[in-house]
Amino acid sequence: MNLELVTIGTELLLGFTVDSNGAELGRALAAVGVRVVRRTTVGDGVDEVRDAVAAALGRTGAVLTTGGLGPTRDDLTKEVVSGLFGQPLEFREDLWEALVERYRRVGRVPAENNRCQAEVPRGATVLVNRWGSAPGLWIEGRIPGSGASGLAILLPGVPREMRKLLEHEVLPRLAPRGAGRVVRSRTLRTTGIPESSLAERIGHVEPTIAPLTLAYLPGTTGVDLRVTAWDLDEAEADRRLAAAMELLEERAPGAFGRDDADLAAVLLARLRALGQTVVTAESCTGGMVGARITSVPGSSAAFLGGVVAYHNRIKQSALGVPVSVLEAHGAVSEAVATAMAEAARTRLGADWTIGLTGVAGPDGGTAEKPVGLVWVAIAGPDGTTARELRLFGDREEVRVRATEAALALLLARLPQ
Amino acid sequence: MNLELVTIGTELLLGFTVDSNGAELGRALAAVGVRVVRRTTVGDGVDEVRDAVAAALGRTGAVLTTGGLGPTRDDLTKEVVSGLFGQPLEFREDLWEALVERYRRVGRVPAENNRCQAEVPRGATVLVNRWGSAPGLWIEGRIPGSGASGLAILLPGVPREMRKLLEHEVLPRLAPRGAGRVVRSRTLRTTGIPESSLAERIGHVEPTIAPLTLAYLPGTTGVDLRVTAWDLDEAEADRRLAAAMELLEERAPGAFGRDDADLAAVLLARLRALGQTVVTAESCTGGMVGARITSVPGSSAAFLGGVVAYHNRIKQSALGVPVSVLEAHGAVSEAVATAMAEAARTRLGADWTIGLTGVAGPDGGTAEKPVGLVWVAIAGPDGTTARELRLFGDREEVRVRATEAALALLLARLPQ
Repeated sequence: MNLELVTIGTELLLGFTVDSNGAELGRALAAVGVRVVRRTTVGDGVDEVRDAVAAALGRTGAVLTTGGLGPTRDDLTKEVVSGLFGQPLEFREDLWEALVERYRRVGRVPAENNRCQAEVPRGATVLVNRWGSAPGLWIEGRIPGSGASGLAILLPGVPREMRKLLEHEVLPRLAPRGAGRVVRSRTLRTTGIPESSLAERIGHVEPTIAPLTLAYLPGTTGVDLRVTAWDLDEAEADRRLAAAMELLEERAPGAFGRDDADLAAVLLARLRALGQTVVTAESCTGGMVGARITSVPGSSAAFLGGVVAYHNRIKQSALGVPVSVLEAHGAVSEAVATAMAEAARTRLGADWTIGLTGVAGPDGGTAEKPVGLVWVAIAGPDGTTARELRLFGDREEVRVRATEAALALLLARLPQ
Repeated sequence: MNLELVTIGTELLLGFTVDSNGAELGRALAAVGVRVVRRTTVGDGVDEVRDAVAAALGRTGAVLTTGGLGPTRDDLTKEVVSGLFGQPLEFREDLWEALVERYRRVGRVPAENNRCQAEVPRGATVLVNRWGSAPGLWIEGRIPGSGASGLAILLPGVPREMRKLLEHEVLPRLAPRGAGRVVRSRTLRTTGIPESSLAERIGHVEPTIAPLTLAYLPGTTGVDLRVTAWDLDEAEADRRLAAAMELLEERAPGAFGRDDADLAAVLLARLRALGQTVVTAESCTGGMVGARITSVPGSSAAFLGGVVAYHNRIKQSALGVPVSVLEAHGAVSEAVATAMAEAARTRLGADWTIGLTGVAGPDGGTAEKPVGLVWVAIAGPDGTTARELRLFGDREEVRVRATEAALALLLARLPQ
C-alpha cells in the first residue's frame, strides 16, 4: 500500500518549525508495510490544502495529513477534506461534552470557537485523542468528480499527539492493508571502533545477509550498524533481521546493544549487576559525564557523584593533584588524568572512577596539545589505565565524544 | 518572488533521515524576500523527481532542489533537471581537475563514476562547492514544451554543504529578485517568568507594534518573544523590528538577550565583568549545571568547578552537609540546598555557588515531595537565597529546566 503525506502549516514553510513528524511517520508506516511515496508541505490556505490533498488522492488514493485541526481560523484541514469527499460537517454532542469535561478538569471553559472541534464529516471515524483537544479523523469513501474512492487520515500537528494517535489509532487500522510486505530495520550499536576497522571486520558479512542491506552510521557514541529488510514478507523480514543481528553481534567489535540501547544505561546495568559504584573527576567536560550517567533513571544505585575540577586550583584543593605534577606535565596529560581518577576513587570512596582532562577548544590548543586532545583515566580495583584520545569537531562535539569514549572505556574495563 | 522546494531522497521518505534543510531554507529565503510556497519530498526515482520538479516549475516558475547530486546511481537530480530544460550535459575539464586535486589532497584518486560530477548542463552556472565534492547548479532558461521560462537551483543534501552554498552562492543571487519585501523576525529571550505573566505585562504592546506580530514561544530556558515583520519593505521591516525590540526589552521582565543569546554565556560575561567566580554543588542534575556553563568557550575565566553530590554520602563527605540536616529535612529541601551551596562556596573558594537538589523522577516522588520538586540555593558575598521550583516534564526535562532556572537565579542575584 502506498500513501502520501501532506503537512500543513505556514510556520513550516517559513522555517519557524522543523517538521519532525514526517520522518517519524515514514518509518512507522514502512514498518507495517505502508510506503510513503511523497510528502508535501503547504501553508494554511484553503486552496493550497485542497490542491495538495486532491492531487495526493488522485495519484495514490491515500493521504495522511498533519496539522490544521485546531480551533483557530488557520485550522482548516477538516473543512477542506470533508469538502473533497462531499460530506457535510455534523456537530457531535458527545465530542463537545468530552471537550467541555477536558477543560473543566483544568478549571476552564471552552470558548465558542472551540465548538468547531466537535464537528465531524458525516460518515467519518473519530480517532479519539486522549492527549490533546483536537480528535483525529479517518475519512474513507467515494470522491465526487473523480469517481474513485479514497482514504484520508487527519492527525494533529503537535508531535506528541500525532505520535500517540499514530500508535493507538492509525497503525492498527493500516497494518492489515499493508499486504504483509514491510520495510523494517534493526540497529546494532557499537562504540570505540572506527568505521573503517568495523568495515574490515564485518564487511564479509554483507553478501551473506542479502537481500538485507547494511549501513554504517557514525555518531557521537560510535558507529551504528543498521540492517534493513526492504519490501519483504513480514515474517521473513523479522526472521532475516534476527539472524543478521545475531551474526553481527558475534562479529562486530565494540557492540554494546540494539536499537535504542543507551551506553550509559548499559554501563549502569553492568555496575548494578556487579554491585559496584562509580564516581567521576572531570575537567574539560565540566560535569557532562556525570550528567550523562544520571540521565538514566535509577542511576543512584551505582553512581555516587564526582568532582568537577575545571580550574587547576580545584584539581589541587578538591582532589589533591600535586602542583608538581600539574607543572611537570600540564593539566592535559596522562599523569593528571591518572591522579584525578585515583584521588577521586580514594576521596569519594567508589569501586571505579572516570578521570578526564582535555582541550575542548576553540582556544587553548598548542602544537603539542591540540584542540581535541583528551586524556581519560579509569581507576578501579585492579589498577588504573589511561587512554589518549584525538577527537575532532567543535567544542561541544569534542566534549560529547570524550564523554561517550569515557563511558565506553569504563565499560570495557568492567569484569564480564 | 515565490519558490518551491523539492527535496530528494528515499531515506527521507522512509524516515531514516530528518529533513532539517527545509526549515533552514525557508527561513533564510524569507529573510531576503523569497517566499517558499510549497515543499515536496520524493524518492530517488527519475519519474518522481521529474514530476515534482516539472510541477513546481509549472506552478511557481522557480524551484530549489536538495539532494541527488552525488556520484552514485541514485543521484539523478542533475540529469533529470537538465532534461527538463532541454540542455545536454557537458563534461567540464576545469571541474574534473578541481575534483582530482581535492582527492589528491587527502591521498586518494577519484573513481571513474566520479567523472559525472564534472558534467554540467549547457548554459548552467556552477555554484562552486568548497565544502564538498558535488557543485551546486543554477539553471535558468526557457522550458521546452511549456514555453515559459524557469529557474532551477540544485544544491547538495548534506546540511553543511547546503548551508554554505546557500549563504555564499544562492542568497546573493536571489536577494535582488526578492522585490525588497521580506519576512523577518527577531527574538527577545526571557527567563524565569511564566508565559501568562509575560502576556499580562506586555500584551498591551501588541497593537502598538502592528503590523508586526508577536509570538510567545515557551522553551526550557524560558519564553522567547518572537516579533515578525510579514511581507514588508526591507528597510521598513528592519526599522519596525528594531523599535519593537527596544519596546519589548524595556517592558518584558526576565529579558536576558536577543536572538541566539545563550543564558550561560550572558551569565559568564557578567561574572567576568565583575571579576567574580562561580562553583556548583549539584545533586539531581548530576553535573548538568557545570556542563552547561562550560559549554561556553572561555568559561574558565569565571567557572572554577564543583561537586556532584548525588549520593547523600557525598553530600556529607565532600560538602560536609550534616547528617542531622539530611535526616531532619530530607535530601530535597531548602536546608540541604542551602548547606550544599554554602559548603561549596567555602570549601572550593568562589564568590558564588549554585546549590541544587531535587526529585527528577520518574521514581522517588512522594505526595509531599513530588517529581519535579527542585530546591535551588544561591550563595554569594551578600548571603544565601533559596527558591523552590515545581517543574513539569519527564526526567530530562525536569533536569534541563532546573539547570536553566538555576542559571537565571544566579544571574538575578548578580549586582547590575
